[in-house]
Amino acid sequence: MEFDTITAISTPSGEGAIAIVRISGDAAVTIADNIFKGKTPLAKAETHTIHYGHLIEPSTSEIIEEVMVSVLRAPRTFTKEDIIEINCHGGIVSVNRVLDLVLSQGARLAEPGEFTKRAFLNGRIDLSQAEGVIDLIRAKTDRAMNVALKQVEGRLSSQVRRLRQKLLETVAHVEVNIDYPEYDAETVTLELLKEKGEEVRQEIEQLLMTAKQGKILREGLATAIIGRPNVGKSSLMNSLVHENKAIVTDIPGTTRDVLEEYVNVRGVPLRLIDTAGIRETEDIVEKIGVERSRKALADAELILFVLNAAEELSKEDEALFEAIQDMNAVVVLNKTDLEITIDTDRVSSLAGERPVIGTSLLREEGIDELEQAIAHLFFDEGVEGADLSYVSNARHIALLKQAKGAIEEALEGADMMLPVDMVQIDITRAWELLGEVIGDNVHESLIDQLFSQFCLGK
Amino acid sequence: MEFDTITAISTPSGEGAIAIVRISGDAAVTIADNIFKGKTPLAKAETHTIHYGHLIEPSTSEIIEEVMVSVLRAPRTFTKEDIIEINCHGGIVSVNRVLDLVLSQGARLAEPGEFTKRAFLNGRIDLSQAEGVIDLIRAKTDRAMNVALKQVEGRLSSQVRRLRQKLLETVAHVEVNIDYPEYDAETVTLELLKEKGEEVRQEIEQLLMTAKQGKILREGLATAIIGRPNVGKSSLMNSLVHENKAIVTDIPGTTRDVLEEYVNVRGVPLRLIDTAGIRETEDIVEKIGVERSRKALADAELILFVLNAAEELSKEDEALFEAIQDMNAVVVLNKTDLEITIDTDRVSSLAGERPVIGTSLLREEGIDELEQAIAHLFFDEGVEGADLSYVSNARHIALLKQAKGAIEEALEGADMMLPVDMVQIDITRAWELLGEVIGDNVHESLIDQLFSQFCLGK
Repeated sequence: MEFDTITAISTPSGEGAIAIVRISGDAAVTIADNIFKGKTPLAKAETHTIHYGHLIEPSTSEIIEEVMVSVLRAPRTFTKEDIIEINCHGGIVSVNRVLDLVLSQGARLAEPGEFTKRAFLNGRIDLSQAEGVIDLIRAKTDRAMNVALKQVEGRLSSQVRRLRQKLLETVAHVEVNIDYPEYDAETVTLELLKEKGEEVRQEIEQLLMTAKQGKILREGLATAIIGRPNVGKSSLMNSLVHENKAIVTDIPGTTRDVLEEYVNVRGVPLRLIDTAGIRETEDIVEKIGVERSRKALADAELILFVLNAAEELSKEDEALFEAIQDMNAVVVLNKTDLEITIDTDRVSSLAGERPVIGTSLLREEGIDELEQAIAHLFFDEGVEGADLSYVSNARHIALLKQAKGAIEEALEGADMMLPVDMVQIDITRAWELLGEVIGDNVHESLIDQLFSQFCLGK
Repeated sequence: MEFDTITAISTPSGEGAIAIVRISGDAAVTIADNIFKGKTPLAKAETHTIHYGHLIEPSTSEIIEEVMVSVLRAPRTFTKEDIIEINCHGGIVSVNRVLDLVLSQGARLAEPGEFTKRAFLNGRIDLSQAEGVIDLIRAKTDRAMNVALKQVEGRLSSQVRRLRQKLLETVAHVEVNIDYPEYDAETVTLELLKEKGEEVRQEIEQLLMTAKQGKILREGLATAIIGRPNVGKSSLMNSLVHENKAIVTDIPGTTRDVLEEYVNVRGVPLRLIDTAGIRETEDIVEKIGVERSRKALADAELILFVLNAAEELSKEDEALFEAIQDMNAVVVLNKTDLEITIDTDRVSSLAGERPVIGTSLLREEGIDELEQAIAHLFFDEGVEGADLSYVSNARHIALLKQAKGAIEEALEGADMMLPVDMVQIDITRAWELLGEVIGDNVHESLIDQLFSQFCLGK
């Protein structure tokens, strides 16, 4: 395929030691040579070499920056095209003036994800690998990054390819049998379809079993800390944040004030909901406890419900128990350093199968147990120990579910002794759906939409 | 000199396409080889080459990241030491786990500025060049970056070296004359000292003439927008911000809420004071105009004083004129779209030599004139046109002033026919002071302090 030459800043914005402006396309080396003054022209440089020099505004000969330029020639590059990487000083002005200079030489500003999109369109990686690249960048925990890394390496792709191959062979086999109907075609063929179909169905099911956990690793677990005023909600939040590496990120496209706070609890990334709210309100002695809690519940996938162990259960507590009836929750009995007056039996019965953990956040007691309980709620073995590859992407999960559905329909059809070619339609549909995971037969608009989620310069 | 091997993340923190972990020192290549799995060992790689591969945790053989590794061998590197640059995916988890891996192999986490410090200590650049590197990264405008770039290139250094050479030759000459006193030593020598000293004095003076402007370019001009409620302060701020590239930066070490807003007005970087204050208060119909204005005045180097042209001058206006009596200011007569009822003669007389500019911010009129007035207030020709190299660093300015002082004392001494060796002491002192600009005879603690202002990884 032939594309124009694109460029973008590939490092995060802000002041740093080094920033990178990347150029990809047929004209990359020529464009760089127009503005680069070093020992030798880049056109003569071997691939995978680095060159010290200066960027010059060609019309005025003015020095624009002191740079190191990397020359990476097609096809052994990220995009399979010629790539130039200009390493300049990491200031806001510096990197933008380098970008402007490159743009002035005829490169086009890349759209978000366009470099990776080219890697996909040029056939270096498939769609699920490309999606792994976003996940890699966005990963909030080590484990989430490992999942993404495996996806980038093509672990999921090769599993999906194997399944597709099996379906394809089955269909081919069926064709053969139909062409030579001397054998008792219908019956034998349907048996084969059932056998192979069941194998594939089971493998997809196994993949899907990792999906819930994979999705948590990828997206984080929306976590609400709820409870009456002054039971210790903000202390709990602070404990979680301070004990663990908190990752605060801007949400792209929104104002700087909206922050998401991630906490890595034994490999489970908790996305804390309404952290600002909790912090603010406890500053003003937390006026609106229950009301706010109810609001936080709406989006939560995990509830940390804090109770004051040194007080009787109140009506509000009971109401909150009511509100979280069917949700994943850990009940935190805080203030165990004081005399315990709460009715623990009643709490246990209200909690049901959900864990109840005693803590004294004041004395920093019970936090380990709480973290363990959270991890076990979602990962039987605890996450850190597990070494599965997960299906983590919602798009992949949906396609796998649909493919499984198509195969189940095929199996039902076979059971009902429907005509072979009708059963075959479902098998083919499953084959197509699996293909969409890796980007076969995917509509262009979907591709555009997927890559637009990338950051600039990737 | 021999140093241990250091490492740091060299790209700004945040999510981006690429992040860089840099390693510098004797063990850089060995450390990288311990954790890198590519086609060939890095030890065998030629300098200035790039290698695709994976980082591996040596104890478990687990894949940590997919990377491109640059090998840069001493002495043709930034630090004059062996340098390894690991380009990895630009996620927060990714880059930190790469850093952790490098640290686990025996590299030490670099202090802020330590790479540049090594470039200085290893004699690749002098101190004023190193200081230019910080300025380059921090530059808020194109022009400020050009000043920094010239400093990095050694423009100031070579001027200072030339002056020092001249002083040294003079002193040497004096020594010769003293050694051969048959010529009328004292008189001839003093004449020579006076002539050469005067030359150097004039050159330093010329350098210092650029200092005021250089400092503004480097640090930005602290600018306060003052005026009574509802005269249009926030409109003015918004005009300046929207018409120009606003650069919002975090102040390192403070909370995220404290922002500085820079506006590039024709090459002059204005650092707007109390922008949050102005925005907030106009939201609630700006309750506290004059009071807040007085507070903003304390730190300001430039005042934009906004008056309502459609109202009479009030007592508050007069009080504010009083308050800014001796300050750099532009008077903005806003709301010229309405009937002008303000006493313009009185305003002109109160403004004195300071420009008075009529604007209708509502109709976006007069903003060009205002910007021109601001630029001309500090740069005779306007900044964009000028092509001077500026002395911009406060430390350099102070040293140049002291050196000039020492030479003036020498000149006075010569006028008073003091003994040659007394005059010579002052000349030598000037020579030493100039040396400090480029890092000769500079105390270690000063060096530590200077480099600690750098960002990490530089």
